[in-house]
Amino acid sequence: MDMYEDFEEIRVKDVYIIDALTDPTPVVLLENESGSMLPIYIGHLEALSIGNVLKNISPPRPMAHDLLINIFDRLEIKIEGVMIDDKIDKVYYARLLVRKGHNLMQFDARPSDCIAIALRTEAPIKIRKKVLEDSEIEMSRLEGARVMSIFG
Amino acid sequence: MDMYEDFEEIRVKDVYIIDALTDPTPVVLLENESGSMLPIYIGHLEALSIGNVLKNISPPRPMAHDLLINIFDRLEIKIEGVMIDDKIDKVYYARLLVRKGHNLMQFDARPSDCIAIALRTEAPIKIRKKVLEDSEIEMSRLEGARVMSIFG
Repeated sequence: MDMYEDFEEIRVKDVYIIDALTDPTPVVLLENESGSMLPIYIGHLEALSIGNVLKNISPPRPMAHDLLINIFDRLEIKIEGVMIDDKIDKVYYARLLVRKGHNLMQFDARPSDCIAIALRTEAPIKIRKKVLEDSEIEMSRLEGARVMSIFG
Repeated sequence: MDMYEDFEEIRVKDVYIIDALTDPTPVVLLENESGSMLPIYIGHLEALSIGNVLKNISPPRPMAHDLLINIFDRLEIKIEGVMIDDKIDKVYYARLLVRKGHNLMQFDARPSDCIAIALRTEAPIKIRKKVLEDSEIEMSRLEGARVMSIFG
């Protein structure tokens, strides 16, 4: 059985701050090959961590995700990929796939951590097709919100 | 040569939000055996991550530090300790000591990540004596600031 059955690859389009009715909230916007968009609300620090990679910025001090990658590199642990596989009560669930030699392991994780780690290692991000179909948005709706790049 | 020469053990007293002149800022307060105190400014997310351990709270979703610990546990990677070893231009520098079998490795990291990880594994936190001496504060000064527990 293919573990990626019912999944498709998705890429990170950008991180934004959405000027919502309440507080400005960061989102990471994902986009599949045919242009379907999925925004996931994330924390400010995770937005910064993802944005650093997208903008090719090296932070002055390693962030938690950089530390993790540094340790993995030295121990020859490979990030095999990320699977965003569920959405329950507006919360997305994901798994980080980690390989050490022949040993492939899966870890429950937040999509934001998974994406920040995947981008640093150029690991593929896959999403369950049903999760994307249930939550994709029209770009026009996003354009209706006030959207700012987190890097100004 | 003892790698811990010139270092002493320090423990985490608590995390606070200091109601500074500008924005409320989280600090982690460290205390050595003889009661010397050292506050280190940290990010909000890191304060939450450290506070979760101190208050024995399991977050609904694993935070980045929880993910890292989960992966290390499965791969039999041990956190040997944390060394806070320098302060330059008000920025603290630390190293995370990681052991895999006979292999002891050091990684450059922020003190906040180091402390969040050390607390989860009960690994010792050591600080260079000179760094503590140069930066320790009187408790009375901290009491002068408006200090709030991050958990209300």
